[in-house]
Amino acid sequence: MLFASSWPRSYRSLTDEPTPVSISCSLGNMTRPRTNPLELSGEQMRLATQRVLDLLIEMTEGNHRCPASGGDLSAGCLKDVSRPPAEGPRELDDLLKIVRAAVDPSYQSAGPGYMAYIPSGGIFTSALAEFLACGLNRYTGKVKTAPALVALEESVLRWICDLFGFPAESQALLTSGGSMANLIALTTARTVHADGQVDRATLYIGDQGHGSLAKAARTAGISRDHIRVIRSDSALQLDTEHLKDCLTADRDAGLIPVCICATAGTTNSGTIDPLREIAGIARQFQVWFHVDGAYGGLFQLTERGRRRLTGIERADSITIDPHKTLFLPFGTGAVVVRSRELLRRTFSEPADYMHDIYGASDLDITAGLPDFDELSPELTRPFRGLRLWLPLHLHGVNAFAEQINEKLDLATIAFERLATDECFEVPWSPDLSVVVFRLRGRDDDVQLDFLNRINLTQRVLLSSTRIGGSIFLRLAILSVRTHFDRVNEALEIISQAARAYRSQ
Amino acid sequence: MLFASSWPRSYRSLTDEPTPVSISCSLGNMTRPRTNPLELSGEQMRLATQRVLDLLIEMTEGNHRCPASGGDLSAGCLKDVSRPPAEGPRELDDLLKIVRAAVDPSYQSAGPGYMAYIPSGGIFTSALAEFLACGLNRYTGKVKTAPALVALEESVLRWICDLFGFPAESQALLTSGGSMANLIALTTARTVHADGQVDRATLYIGDQGHGSLAKAARTAGISRDHIRVIRSDSALQLDTEHLKDCLTADRDAGLIPVCICATAGTTNSGTIDPLREIAGIARQFQVWFHVDGAYGGLFQLTERGRRRLTGIERADSITIDPHKTLFLPFGTGAVVVRSRELLRRTFSEPADYMHDIYGASDLDITAGLPDFDELSPELTRPFRGLRLWLPLHLHGVNAFAEQINEKLDLATIAFERLATDECFEVPWSPDLSVVVFRLRGRDDDVQLDFLNRINLTQRVLLSSTRIGGSIFLRLAILSVRTHFDRVNEALEIISQAARAYRSQ
Repeated sequence: MLFASSWPRSYRSLTDEPTPVSISCSLGNMTRPRTNPLELSGEQMRLATQRVLDLLIEMTEGNHRCPASGGDLSAGCLKDVSRPPAEGPRELDDLLKIVRAAVDPSYQSAGPGYMAYIPSGGIFTSALAEFLACGLNRYTGKVKTAPALVALEESVLRWICDLFGFPAESQALLTSGGSMANLIALTTARTVHADGQVDRATLYIGDQGHGSLAKAARTAGISRDHIRVIRSDSALQLDTEHLKDCLTADRDAGLIPVCICATAGTTNSGTIDPLREIAGIARQFQVWFHVDGAYGGLFQLTERGRRRLTGIERADSITIDPHKTLFLPFGTGAVVVRSRELLRRTFSEPADYMHDIYGASDLDITAGLPDFDELSPELTRPFRGLRLWLPLHLHGVNAFAEQINEKLDLATIAFERLATDECFEVPWSPDLSVVVFRLRGRDDDVQLDFLNRINLTQRVLLSSTRIGGSIFLRLAILSVRTHFDRVNEALEIISQAARAYRSQ
Repeated sequence: MLFASSWPRSYRSLTDEPTPVSISCSLGNMTRPRTNPLELSGEQMRLATQRVLDLLIEMTEGNHRCPASGGDLSAGCLKDVSRPPAEGPRELDDLLKIVRAAVDPSYQSAGPGYMAYIPSGGIFTSALAEFLACGLNRYTGKVKTAPALVALEESVLRWICDLFGFPAESQALLTSGGSMANLIALTTARTVHADGQVDRATLYIGDQGHGSLAKAARTAGISRDHIRVIRSDSALQLDTEHLKDCLTADRDAGLIPVCICATAGTTNSGTIDPLREIAGIARQFQVWFHVDGAYGGLFQLTERGRRRLTGIERADSITIDPHKTLFLPFGTGAVVVRSRELLRRTFSEPADYMHDIYGASDLDITAGLPDFDELSPELTRPFRGLRLWLPLHLHGVNAFAEQINEKLDLATIAFERLATDECFEVPWSPDLSVVVFRLRGRDDDVQLDFLNRINLTQRVLLSSTRIGGSIFLRLAILSVRTHFDRVNEALEIISQAARAYRSQ
């Protein structure tokens, strides 16, 4: 048993105990030696970390054996996690046992068999960097409070800007995920094009676009009635003729088109919209051009990705999700915006209590570093920079690019195997690493039954979606721990499962 | 030297190497054994964690000796952190040395001398919980994907709702900080009261309110011209007569008053607005009543706090910041909203690719647990629950309450000492743990010089602000590591520094 017994007797406040006589009455018992149970000794830190690390190693090493959609949830487990915190302390080992049991019935989103939704996995060295960032707990919202840590984060952000060929006056920001990145982009677009005229603002999203785009637009005050859903063509790409028609109609109706949202890697099928063409339309209609590359944007790290993402460099803003395509833990998104000044116009607010630390002198060696709190909706904020910086430098960029390349290869293999099997309809060759397929000539109920049969093996977890009114299965290959062996196994499971329907 | 040399030779993708002859051509070299440098062995995980932990312990144990506003920033340090990531790997020890050097010139926001802005400190066990959460990397946006982890987070959220006496249909959410919490609250208020009429929406914030409120309102589409700044009275509380006048004028002008933002613990002076009275006004005018308790809300954990926060239980929404008044690492905010359904109305968006995992059956043991992604602007999200759950259960609620009580005691001591010294003007007795003071009869330049003199000791870091047009110094006592000894030292430093101006 660890901890509770070894905690020192805790400090009691003035109000909890009779005040002993002391020289200065107002000091009360404050001058007595006291210890704070919230401040651990080095030895306690070591012991506690050891326990957590043991659990993490056990679960990481067990990843490849774990049931892909998790074990059964017991009422006892649910009861254990649902207790409110008590007044007194508990043992760390007991609490970690509860956490361990609570993880078991979860989708194994850190494992190699996870091919549902958009996988990622979360690499250990990024979790470790986050541990360090939280333990250090420095305030990185302003240059003056932590200049070198702001510079560290900014170096990663410049690297992201450079990746997309964005100019020096561009700015990237780290966010909790793609949703907040989309919100920052769309809010900036709205401020630029429809400040004070929000009720007339309109926005354009492909019917394959992510739900977070509409959510972000609504959060930014744009009416749901003014969110235009643009049709897709047969390749599942945003139909640019329909887009132009909608823009023209809205402009003619006295509305204010604010932003076209293209997608670089749709969630449904990994499809990349015709970015170059849309960039031209955005310029023609003088609206903001946002690319939601939460899933697909970081394929830019590979040669094939760059080729397929051509046109993304003309965007006004791009959303990417390092917690997807850079394999980092959930909570790591980013937005890249062509103009830092437009972010400032949208998000800066003066505050009296911060007047000590406004702005560095131009002569200062920190000149040019950004005060993040003036460029984003967040003020006090987590120091997200380290969870990118450490793994990128430690492993090197090539290690990431190679993994991303591997996923493209694996998707190609999966597509070829499925497309050459007459059991399946595989209408779209993958732009990236999502392969969409269904049983040939069967209705939706059968597709869902088929999916269920595959997932019941617990070796892989696939998900389904609706495209053009029909159910399709998705094989999304992006977990850092998914390699050929598991994809091959998935294909064998799929093929095996399909046989059950052949004889019917 | 650790790591680079011990990394296994990395996987190369199909495109990087000539494909060796193999049985299945399309498989290429995929079938060869390969290793992924991003996947660490258990032994590598142990070694890397050891190094990071050594650094954390060294810096935590050194906290009480560190210069409060940090060491000098060198050009070399700035250059080291500003290098973009290279293609190849680097050594962990080298990278940690760079981080260590980059932390040194930062404000010591984790240390006992930090009494500027709003301190907190960040406790180790919460950082450890975050390490675990990131390493596990489970998807907690939907009940179905991680039911017991969602239940774990929800147990903390219910505890927060209960703390404020909110009803069963209320819902709390964890956020990256108070800014996002305010954004969620204000967006919900706007959706409820001015959906589709955003250009006519108005909002009311005290002149002592936090900048994040205006920022959140603008993000939600409310025009800057429609953000009414309500005067404070001589006690620095929001002037309710001015509030009523503004509400009446706007209503009469055909505008749509949406939300009154009261503050429970202003950043300037820790003042609590007259919450009960404002609740009555909000009801009278039928507008949303939001309380920004980012700093002050969690004093509700103490008896004195509850007394002073009376009326907060009538709010429609409350912002709290566990990364302030629960001493957790930056990146831990929360919002409490009286009605879960209003959050759902504001933030839910259907998505085809998620249709597999909508909604639990009412008969399911998970019935009643929330799909967080339908209630918040975030979809894929960090699992923030664990960084509250683990420390709250491990240390027990009393350990936190006692620390918060201690800070109230310390502020009382500081106030009494300063107020009884004729050198100082100390116009406001502290509602919470911020003490505001200035040199008596001196102009603003002297106050800033005085502040500088105090901070140059590097034993404490105070900040200043402007109240009613004049500069005041702030002694903000909330770091988990600030105890009587350091407050006493601060008071002696202040007293000593003030003497320099007596003879002038």
